[in-house]
Formats: sequence, structure tokens, C-alpha cells
Amino acid sequence: MGETNHNDWQVVRFDGNEPSSMNDEIAAEFPLTIMVNDAEFATMVCSPINLEELVIGFLASEGVIRFYSDIKTILLDETKGFAYIELYKNIDTSQQYSKRFIGSCCGKSRQFYFKSDVQTAKTIYSKLSVSVEACYALMNELQAASAQFLRTGGVHNAALATPEKMLALRTDIGRHNALDKLYGHIMKNHTQKKDKLIVFSGRVSSEVLLKVTKIGAGILLSKSAPTDLALELADDLGVTVIGFAREGKLNVYTHPGRIAEVNSLMEKQ
Amino acid sequence: MGETNHNDWQVVRFDGNEPSSMNDEIAAEFPLTIMVNDAEFATMVCSPINLEELVIGFLASEGVIRFYSDIKTILLDETKGFAYIELYKNIDTSQQYSKRFIGSCCGKSRQFYFKSDVQTAKTIYSKLSVSVEACYALMNELQAASAQFLRTGGVHNAALATPEKMLALRTDIGRHNALDKLYGHIMKNHTQKKDKLIVFSGRVSSEVLLKVTKIGAGILLSKSAPTDLALELADDLGVTVIGFAREGKLNVYTHPGRIAEVNSLMEKQ
Repeated sequence: MGETNHNDWQVVRFDGNEPSSMNDEIAAEFPLTIMVNDAEFATMVCSPINLEELVIGFLASEGVIRFYSDIKTILLDETKGFAYIELYKNIDTSQQYSKRFIGSCCGKSRQFYFKSDVQTAKTIYSKLSVSVEACYALMNELQAASAQFLRTGGVHNAALATPEKMLALRTDIGRHNALDKLYGHIMKNHTQKKDKLIVFSGRVSSEVLLKVTKIGAGILLSKSAPTDLALELADDLGVTVIGFAREGKLNVYTHPGRIAEVNSLMEKQ
Repeated sequence: MGETNHNDWQVVRFDGNEPSSMNDEIAAEFPLTIMVNDAEFATMVCSPINLEELVIGFLASEGVIRFYSDIKTILLDETKGFAYIELYKNIDTSQQYSKRFIGSCCGKSRQFYFKSDVQTAKTIYSKLSVSVEACYALMNELQAASAQFLRTGGVHNAALATPEKMLALRTDIGRHNALDKLYGHIMKNHTQKKDKLIVFSGRVSSEVLLKVTKIGAGILLSKSAPTDLALELADDLGVTVIGFAREGKLNVYTHPGRIAEVNSLMEKQ
């Protein structure tokens, strides 16, 4: 299982303006559905290691079990992403435990994922192009603009920008909330999104990526790392994901054609 | 509203072994319940700024609205933490939208908070004492031990430790999952918790703090920042929260009596 904690991904790495092609290790994002006494209890996304301990700890956290000995059996189907738990006691899954969760910072319900996201997530056909220099400048602007909020050290920032400048910045203790605030701002003001980037301080999980496609932006520029599931979705949905944009370096993970320097390299060949 | 984005908190700041007392700005964590067409839709925690945009963006993200013009009225009751949205259309709140969410990295349903947490969160009476030097050493050990996992840059770590050494380390893309894995490990092995610390890479939200009290540890040592709600809970439930433990500095936010250096200072006075 330890081997499945990350996956390789081919990236274009920029050190300053100097591109190189390399293999990068990407954190795996694994959906796990937890069935308790034959009823669906919750779906979360997680790193696919120590799944049995995750299930035990999650059920204890949620107050479903008090002791390890409350559990009769745990069966893991790692191929399909299911955990089957049988308890010595009955639980009322219809009442208190029927809820699904957006789990643990990067999670979302698989049902939710399929039902609601398919309706709202959309493929992005933006022709926006941005230079690596502009990416560095925007990330610096995000840091500077958020400095006033950042004294507390506990907040995330999401901004809407053109390649030239930042247009709106929203802040929240929750990564997803910061993006939702920006989305609300865009909807309320009927802002054109196709020619805009999202500049983001947080990690790029599948949920973050889906939010960006719902907003309708073609480029996501983040200070942090993506997950493999986010990159697969970005690949499918036509989003350019730029990550680890810090200290004069960045990685282009998907659809590099929107990066001006990559585009001109491709034209030379 | 901008003023309520953070709150002051009296902390004991250590620079190396040198303590000082100071006021620190702590990110506010605000529970907001969203009512759509008179039915409860979701409860999230967030930073209490741009709440109207948050509601609009959240409803759009969830596929409830497609356009801003789908909304008839939005009424915010910021004192009680409620947002009342009336739409021009009916939505089936019993089916697709009746779920509650652990929202956005730091959130949890308020109902959940009240119902399940009151049953499982407990006041901690640990007499464990730890020195500042031991905290620095444990945080370095967490960083070093997780380095092998950290190539991907997208994971969080939670460890169980005595003041002398780390006992178990768990890793996940989700902060809460890393803690749940550790909790599962502890339950399965019937580990004594009272004399142990939790060492953690992530931010300390109310949900993280509650998990630590459920596990039963009296000291939470984190590399990152806490929220005000987490500190209020820690204050109530008897947990020592140490944050921003990095680069030879740390902040003690609550119950500083468990820090050896503070204790000996108090005895001198």
C-alpha cells in the first residue's frame, strides 16, 4: 500500500524562465466509501495508506464506536474503494448517521461528485495565454495583498486575475470558502471568466479543481501542490494547472499550451 | 465586518527558551447555517467576511443556482450566524440537498457539533509536562520522519509522542484523516493517551481540537496557526495548544501550566 501513496506525473518545470521536462511525484487522492452494518455511512477522499486505522478512527471520531472491540469485522476492498464494517451493535443509519461528508480538507461525497458535479463542472475552452513572468508577478501580488490578512497565519486566499493584474481577492480560513466567495463575487458582478486566471494559496484537490471549472476559468495558479485526482480531472476538463509557484519556480502540470513560453517552444519545434 | 476577521488572544511566546507574554491575532472561525426556501441546507464554518458572496458561490458550487438572478432575496443574520435565501424556484431539500457538510477544510455541521461531539469530546485532566526544547525536537522529528512522504508536498502528518520520542506517525492528504488514522492506531493498540502529545503539521481548527480531546491527549503541538473557536474549546476542555512551532519559536495559547519552563516561572513568582 505504501507504494500507492503517490503517482508520477510528467510536468514542465520552470526555474525562472528556464523550462525543463521532469517526472514529479503527486500525492494520491483516493475515494473511500464506508459501509456500516450494510448501510452506506460516508464517503471521503484520503491517501490510500493505513485505511483500516482511518476507518476505526473516523468511526470513533464520529461517535459510532467507543472501543475497538465494538467492531466485529472490517473488510477492505481497495480496488473498488469500499470498507465494510460490521459492528456488534445496531446503529440508526437513517437518523444520525445518514449524512455524507465532504471529508477532511479535500474530500467530497462520491455520490455528490457524480450527481451534482456532472451537472455543473464543464470543459474549459479558454484561449487565454499567460507568461511565466506574469505568474510569478501574480503570486507575489497575492502574497502582498493578503499580508494584511495573514498576520493570523490561518487563512487561504483566492483571487481572480488577468495576466496583467489582480481583480479581486477573497480570504477565508477554509480553502473552499475562499474560492466560493470569489465565485459569488464573479456571479454577482457577471464577470467574464474565460480570459481570467484563478490565483490560489491552497492545495489543489479534486474539489478545488472542480470549483475552478464551475467558475469557468482556464488557468489555476497555485502556491501549493496538486493531487493526482485533481490533475486527472484538469486533464479531462481542459484546465491548465500551475503549482508550487514559489521562490521563482513553478510546475506546469496540465495543458501547458496556455503558457506563452511553452507555446513558443512548441512552435519552434 | 472586516474587523471581525480575527480576534486577540493572550499567548506565551517562546523565542528559543526565552518566554514573553504577548497579544496574538487569531483567525476567527464563524459557524454559518444556510437556509434555502425556509429549509436547512448546510452549516459551514468560515471567516466572517464576504458572507453574502460565500452563500452565492456555495449555492452555485453545489449546483443549487445557475445564475445570480435565481436568487430572490438573501438575508444575513450575523449575530446568530444564519443566512436565509429565497430562490425563485423550488428545490428538493429532502432529496439531493438535505445533506450537511463538513465544510471547507475546517468546518463541520453545527448539529453534528452539538449532537455527536458532546457525547465524545471530553475534558482532559492530563498531568503531562513538556519542555520547550522537547517541543522543538519533536517538531523536527515530525519534519524529518515525514520527509519521505513529503516529496509530493501535498500531505499532512499527525504523530503520537511522549516528550522524549515519537511513537507513531500517520500521513494523509487530509488533515483530519491523518488524525483519524492516528486515532485508529491508538484504539487498536489500546495505547495509553494521557501521558502523550499529539504532534501535528496542520492548522488547528475547532474540528481538529475536538478530535484531539476525543483521542484524549492533553497537549497539541502544531506547526501551524489555530482559530479562535479552537482556542475557546481548548480553554474549556483543558487542552494545551502550542502553535507556530517553527524556526526555533513557538506560541503557547492555552493551559501553559503543562510547559515545564512556564511552570517553573509560575513557581518562582
